[in-house]
Amino acid sequence: MSHFLGEVIGTMILIILGDGVVANVVLGKTKGNSSGWIVITTGWAFAVAIPAFIFGGISGAHFNPALTIGLAAIGKFPWAEVPTYIAGQMIGAFLGAVIVYLHYLPHWSATEDKASKLAVFCTGPAIRSTGANFISEFIGTFILVFGILGLGTVKMADGLGTLAVGLLIWVIGLALGGPTGYAINPARDLGPRIAHAVLPIPGKGDSDWGYAWIPVIAPILGGLVGALIFNGLF
Amino acid sequence: MSHFLGEVIGTMILIILGDGVVANVVLGKTKGNSSGWIVITTGWAFAVAIPAFIFGGISGAHFNPALTIGLAAIGKFPWAEVPTYIAGQMIGAFLGAVIVYLHYLPHWSATEDKASKLAVFCTGPAIRSTGANFISEFIGTFILVFGILGLGTVKMADGLGTLAVGLLIWVIGLALGGPTGYAINPARDLGPRIAHAVLPIPGKGDSDWGYAWIPVIAPILGGLVGALIFNGLF
Amino acid sequence: MSHFLGEVIGTMILIILGDGVVANVVLGKTKGNSSGWIVITTGWAFAVAIPAFIFGGISGAHFNPALTIGLAAIGKFPWAEVPTYIAGQMIGAFLGAVIVYLHYLPHWSATEDKASKLAVFCTGPAIRSTGANFISEFIGTFILVFGILGLGTVKMADGLGTLAVGLLIWVIGLALGGPTGYAINPARDLGPRIAHAVLPIPGKGDSDWGYAWIPVIAPILGGLVGALIFNGLF
Amino acid sequence: MSHFLGEVIGTMILIILGDGVVANVVLGKTKGNSSGWIVITTGWAFAVAIPAFIFGGISGAHFNPALTIGLAAIGKFPWAEVPTYIAGQMIGAFLGAVIVYLHYLPHWSATEDKASKLAVFCTGPAIRSTGANFISEFIGTFILVFGILGLGTVKMADGLGTLAVGLLIWVIGLALGGPTGYAINPARDLGPRIAHAVLPIPGKGDSDWGYAWIPVIAPILGGLVGALIFNGLF
Repeated sequence: MSHFLGEVIGTMILIILGDGVVANVVLGKTKGNSSGWIVITTGWAFAVAIPAFIFGGISGAHFNPALTIGLAAIGKFPWAEVPTYIAGQMIGAFLGAVIVYLHYLPHWSATEDKASKLAVFCTGPAIRSTGANFISEFIGTFILVFGILGLGTVKMADGLGTLAVGLLIWVIGLALGGPTGYAINPARDLGPRIAHAVLPIPGKGDSDWGYAWIPVIAPILGGLVGALIFNGLF
Repeated sequence: MSHFLGEVIGTMILIILGDGVVANVVLGKTKGNSSGWIVITTGWAFAVAIPAFIFGGISGAHFNPALTIGLAAIGKFPWAEVPTYIAGQMIGAFLGAVIVYLHYLPHWSATEDKASKLAVFCTGPAIRSTGANFISEFIGTFILVFGILGLGTVKMADGLGTLAVGLLIWVIGLALGGPTGYAINPARDLGPRIAHAVLPIPGKGDSDWGYAWIPVIAPILGGLVGALIFNGLF
Repeated sequence: MSHFLGEVIGTMILIILGDGVVANVVLGKTKGNSSGWIVITTGWAFAVAIPAFIFGGISGAHFNPALTIGLAAIGKFPWAEVPTYIAGQMIGAFLGAVIVYLHYLPHWSATEDKASKLAVFCTGPAIRSTGANFISEFIGTFILVFGILGLGTVKMADGLGTLAVGLLIWVIGLALGGPTGYAINPARDLGPRIAHAVLPIPGKGDSDWGYAWIPVIAPILGGLVGALIFNGLF
Repeated sequence: MSHFLGEVIGTMILIILGDGVVANVVLGKTKGNSSGWIVITTGWAFAVAIPAFIFGGISGAHFNPALTIGLAAIGKFPWAEVPTYIAGQMIGAFLGAVIVYLHYLPHWSATEDKASKLAVFCTGPAIRSTGANFISEFIGTFILVFGILGLGTVKMADGLGTLAVGLLIWVIGLALGGPTGYAINPARDLGPRIAHAVLPIPGKGDSDWGYAWIPVIAPILGGLVGALIFNGLF
C-alpha cells in the first residue's frame, strides 16, 4: 500500500472512531448519550492507537499535519512528501466524518442543539478567546509531538510504543482538552468541518469558520516548536 | 481441545462477561445499576479479550460468524469448517446467556422495564429505522473485521496483539455503539435472543424478532466487505 | 522472602488497595465519594495486578484460598503448603483492612450508613437470597480460576500475563459483581470482616455473620470446579 | 541530556498533565467539568507514566523527592545527587503549574470557588485533621515507593514495567486518594503551591500554607520507610 493510501485510510478510521465517540455522547437518543468526558477521551485514545498499530509500518501513521510538518522540520521526514501526506490526511478526515454522519443518521434530527451537531465534527472553545484558545491548542500539540518523539527514543517491546502513544492521547484529552476540546491536529478539525458544511444535516447551524483557523495554525506551530525543542534536547 | 469446543467455551465466556455487564448496568438493584456507557464498553472489551487470550491458540478465537465467514471469503479459513464454527458460536452464546440468567436470578423480578430485560440478552436500536440500523451494524462490523485483520499484520510482542483486539472492541463500543448497541456479531445477538425467548424470565416481553435479522445479516455483510477490502489493500 | 511472607504482604497490599477503593467511593466526605462502579472495578483490577506483579515470582501470588485449593486439587500446588498459604492470606487480608481503617480514619464518623461502613470491609448481597447469592459467588470464582489457569497456558511477553489477570479481575467486577459485590475470594471477605468486628469503628453495625459463609464456601467450590474443568479440558 | 534537565522537564510534563486534569474537572466551564474521580485518577496515572517512559533512561524518572530520598537511603542512588534532583523536581513542578495556569487562562475567572482554584495546584484534606492527614500521605507514599521498588524486581518486557508504574499510580489514586487527594510527592505539591501563591489568578484565596508541610514531610517519611522495608524484605 502506498504511503498516501495509508494516511487516507488510517486518518479515516481515526475520525470514524474519534468523531464517532463524540456523536455517541452529544447526539440525542444514542446509547451513550451524556456519558461524559471519560467516554470521549477513552474513545479518542484508541481511535488513534488502533490505526496507528495497523498503518505504522506502512506510512508511519502520522494522520496529523502538525506531526508531519514537525518531523520534516527536524529532518526526520522528507519535505517533498509533506503535501502528499497532508492531502491524504485531509481526504481521510473528510471521508471519516461522512461515515460518522451515515452511522448516526437518525440521530441528527433527534438532536435540538446546533452546537452539539457541530461538535461531532470539529472542536470549539469552551470559552471563546482567540489568544487563550490559540495558546491551549499550541500547548496541547506541543505535548503531543514532543511526547511522540520522546516515546520514539525508548526501547519497548514490539507494539508497546504504539500503545503508549494511545495513552499519551488519552492523558492529553483528560488533562488538556478542557479549554478547546483538543483538536491538536489540523486535519482532524478542518476535514470534518468541511464535511459539516457540505453534508445535508437536518437543522444544522453554521460551521463556525471564524474559529476554524485556530485548530489549524496553533497545532502546526505547537508541533513545530515541540519537534524543534525535542531535537535540541535529545 | 477441539476447535469446536474452543469456540463453544470461548463464546460462552464472552457472553457470560458481555451480557453480564449489561445485566449489571440495566437490571434493578444491582451493584452496578445505571453505571453508564463506560462500564458497558469496558466490560465488553475484556469480555472479548480474555477468552481471545485463552482460546486464540486453540480455535483462533473467532467467537463470531461474521469473522469466520470473512476469513473464509479471503482464503484464510477453510469453508468446510465454517458450519462447525458457527454452530459452536451459537451454542456457546446460548449457554453463556443461560448462565447470565442464573447469575442475576433475583434481579429479573426487581426490574420493571421489559426492554431492559431484553437488552441483557441482545441488542436493539436506539431509534428504530431498518435502513439506518442496518448501516450502523454494517459499519461497526466492517471496522471490527478490517481492524482484526489489520492488527494481525503487525509485529507485536506475544499477547499484545490480543490486547489490541480488546482495545479495538472498546473503541468500537465507545464510538459506534450509539445507534444499535453494537451487536457486530450474529451469534452474540441471536444465541442470547433465543435464550431470552425460552428462559422463564419473570415479566419478560417479546424477543423483538422483527429486528433480529438485522444484527445477523448486517454483520455478516459488513465483515465480508471488511475482509475483502482488507485483502485488496494488504 | 518466604512463600508465607509473600502471601501475607501481597494479600495485605491487595486489600489496602481493594478495600481502599470501596472506602473512597462509599464513605462520607471522601474525594471519590459516589464515583461509581467504574472506580470500584478499576481499583480492584489493579489492586490485584500490582501485588501479583511483585510477588508472582516469590509465592506465585495466589492471595486467594479458592485459587490455592483449586491449584492443589489439580496437582499444580502441594497440599502440604495449603494451610500455610491460607493462613498467610487471612493474616494479610486482616492487616490490610486495619490499614484501610487507619487511612480513612476521620471518614468513619462522617458516614451515617452502617451498611456502607461494612461494605468497605466485606461483600454483601444486592438482593439477599442464599441460593442465588451462592450461585453468583460460585460462578464468579469459577470464571476467575478457570481464567487464571487458561491465561497461564498462553505464551505472552514477560509481565503481560499478569496484566491480563488484572483485566480478568476488571471484567469479572464489571460483569459479574452486580449481585454480590464479587468476593470471589474467602480471605478477601473473611479477613476484613473480622477486622470490621474488632476495630473501634464509630457507629458501626453488626458484621453480618449470617452471610459470611457464602463468600467463603461458594468461592472455594467455584474455584475447585473451575480448576477441575480446566484440567479436564486442557 | 543531563540528569538535572531530565528531572526538570519530566516533572514539568507530569504537572502539566496532572494538574491539568484537575483543572479540567474542577474549574468552571471546561469541557471536562465535574467529570469525576475516574477522570482525575486516569489522568494522573498517565501523567506520570508518559514522562516516566521518556525520561526513564535519562534521569531514572524520579520526579519525586520522596522516591529520590528513599532510593538514596537504601544505597540505590548517590546522596550527592539528591539536592540536584530535588531542585530539578521543584523547578519542573513550578514551571508545569505555570503552564497549566496559561492553558486554562479564561477559566480562572469563570470559577467562583477559591478552594477549587487552589485544588488545581496542590492537595488539601477532605476532612482537616493533622494526624490523620499525615497518616494518609504516609501510607500512600509508602505504597508508592514500595510498589515501584517491587515492580523493579520483576522481569518484564521492555516498557511494561513503566506501564505497571502507571497502573500503580492509577490504583493509589483510586484507592488511597480519598482523604487527602494523594500528593505522595513533595515537589508535586509544593512547587505548584508556590506557583499558586505568585501567579495573578483572578479571585484566588490563600495558598493554605498551614497544611503545606504535611504533603512534604509525610511523603518523605513514607517513602523512606517504604524503601527501608523493601530493602529488608527483598
